[in-house]
Amino acid sequence: MDIHQLDTPAAVVDLDKLEAAIQKCQNYLDRYGLDNRPHIKTHKIPDIAHMQIKAGAVGITCQKLGEAEIMAQAGIQDIFIPYNIIGPAKLERLMDLARRVRLSVTVDNEFVARNLSTAFRSAKLTLPVLVECDTGGKRCGVQSPQAAAEMARFIQRRPGLVFGGFMTYPNNDGLDLFMRESKRLLAKAGISVERVSGGGTSCLWQAHTHPELTEHRAGMYIFGDRSTMKAGAVQLEDCSFKVITTVVSRPTDERGILDGGSKTFSSDLVGLEGYGMILEYPDARIYSLMEEHGLADFSMCRNKPGIGERVTVIPNHCCAVTNLFTQVYAVRKDQVEVTWPVTARGAIQ
Amino acid sequence: MDIHQLDTPAAVVDLDKLEAAIQKCQNYLDRYGLDNRPHIKTHKIPDIAHMQIKAGAVGITCQKLGEAEIMAQAGIQDIFIPYNIIGPAKLERLMDLARRVRLSVTVDNEFVARNLSTAFRSAKLTLPVLVECDTGGKRCGVQSPQAAAEMARFIQRRPGLVFGGFMTYPNNDGLDLFMRESKRLLAKAGISVERVSGGGTSCLWQAHTHPELTEHRAGMYIFGDRSTMKAGAVQLEDCSFKVITTVVSRPTDERGILDGGSKTFSSDLVGLEGYGMILEYPDARIYSLMEEHGLADFSMCRNKPGIGERVTVIPNHCCAVTNLFTQVYAVRKDQVEVTWPVTARGAIQ
Repeated sequence: MDIHQLDTPAAVVDLDKLEAAIQKCQNYLDRYGLDNRPHIKTHKIPDIAHMQIKAGAVGITCQKLGEAEIMAQAGIQDIFIPYNIIGPAKLERLMDLARRVRLSVTVDNEFVARNLSTAFRSAKLTLPVLVECDTGGKRCGVQSPQAAAEMARFIQRRPGLVFGGFMTYPNNDGLDLFMRESKRLLAKAGISVERVSGGGTSCLWQAHTHPELTEHRAGMYIFGDRSTMKAGAVQLEDCSFKVITTVVSRPTDERGILDGGSKTFSSDLVGLEGYGMILEYPDARIYSLMEEHGLADFSMCRNKPGIGERVTVIPNHCCAVTNLFTQVYAVRKDQVEVTWPVTARGAIQ
Repeated sequence: MDIHQLDTPAAVVDLDKLEAAIQKCQNYLDRYGLDNRPHIKTHKIPDIAHMQIKAGAVGITCQKLGEAEIMAQAGIQDIFIPYNIIGPAKLERLMDLARRVRLSVTVDNEFVARNLSTAFRSAKLTLPVLVECDTGGKRCGVQSPQAAAEMARFIQRRPGLVFGGFMTYPNNDGLDLFMRESKRLLAKAGISVERVSGGGTSCLWQAHTHPELTEHRAGMYIFGDRSTMKAGAVQLEDCSFKVITTVVSRPTDERGILDGGSKTFSSDLVGLEGYGMILEYPDARIYSLMEEHGLADFSMCRNKPGIGERVTVIPNHCCAVTNLFTQVYAVRKDQVEVTWPVTARGAIQ
């Protein structure tokens, strides 16, 4: 099928650009001896995960158990879930997963480590657990190298667990100092650190400037969007992911309404102005989203679209968009090669 | 199952409160002789639509074809889709739907009306079409009573279509004047207006102050959320919908991380500060969302939660939240009575 025949709103991935992005990231990380562990929360599609593995990724990253279960089911062998996993239902699922794939997780507190240990010990399993470190991102994570080293030793002492290294997100200026000091403290206790995992697409191409990293987790590099363009990590011509919409109303000379709203693009602003970039009308501004309508201001555009015209949108944040679509069309030279169900969209935690 | 055993994040609806909300709205609109046509984009669950119909609703409102198809499949007989429906694929689906249920749609331009007419005429079907009017909402809609009357006459002349009245969203000060003038202009042409459809939960309880309205479409009144509370339309004790989360990390004394982020709550701010209200810690502030993490500031709270503690969140915008969940637990006195799949979540347009 031709791309112009797809009903809108349609989420489309350009396969040439997708393959190029996968290869470019792999080449870059290979050049610097860094393990590539792409984050599949961006695409949620097993076929793309397999493309990443085939290109040389050591495994994948999932943000929740539901994603990991779907990827394991699809044959992915090595999965990292950088999350504090809590509660009997999730621990059961985690152990089930650990029996099927090479699994690792993170913790940033003793409560989680203790419960993981109790579960995995009684199941006679061993789980590699990394310590999540807050190296400046101010999200989860232990707050100091001292706390990181203590948590590592705590993990190392717990039956059913093995200390698996350090993890942070996103990579930032404080990373190397934090990791060096944590490693120094651990070395005194005779514990070495084999794996230091960083992440982020915005900081992907600077991963080699962090000597302490051994692996990198990037997600959005495969698609690109307005946020990764703003960060300078992806160029417009390399964006493989876009959403085709139709102009359904032109109430005034300036105002145009697209058939994509917050249930198509999400309301993620991620620090940007407006909700997407219209390729055919780069001077237009998607200034507001209703659930199924996108309100665009075309007053700055010399030519303005007519009702029924199809326009192509680069969204602010591609991960949130794929989470709202049932399927994504993979196209090459504007022909649909395959329709991918977004298998892990909305997966449970 | 007890509500306290549900794995998190869990979306929960209190059935007593839900039933009370459905009845309250129906009683109010009945009292003023207004037709109740609830918007199912809020819940997306056929069982709730049937509860609304059973209470006295004349039909339902859907925002897209995919929702309407699912509701028709579930046995709902009267469906209004207030949307400019465009394109051959959608027109086929619309005609298929028109053969199965009592259907009505809106247009705000001749392009859409002309294409609807061509399709429905050739299928020997007749579609009631309302004119969408911009009475101050600045979204879709014709811009003046003159344009509304012209569009009505245009529809009336097209084979396969019948003029079905006027529609606007949300109800506002300009509504009655706009509708009166539109009706006066049409009366001259011998056309009467049987149906004037308004909408919104924020303005629900003022629907009777608009003498021109004949029906009202509200969605969020059944659940309630921070936005409808802010509008004064729903009180906190009447909110039937909430999300149970777990505190998974406490990196600092002030900061707590919930296992619900933008893929649980959406990034909808709808004019509010923060991303949700934590019932057990009303002074906490969910100040940022990552995809699977909610970052909360507990510095203003006297007591602060521990890791593993479950906390209950009233989200900003309930419609966006149900769109992210596979299922919703319907509970009574904290016991799960039924698990509802969110059948129409993420339905195609």
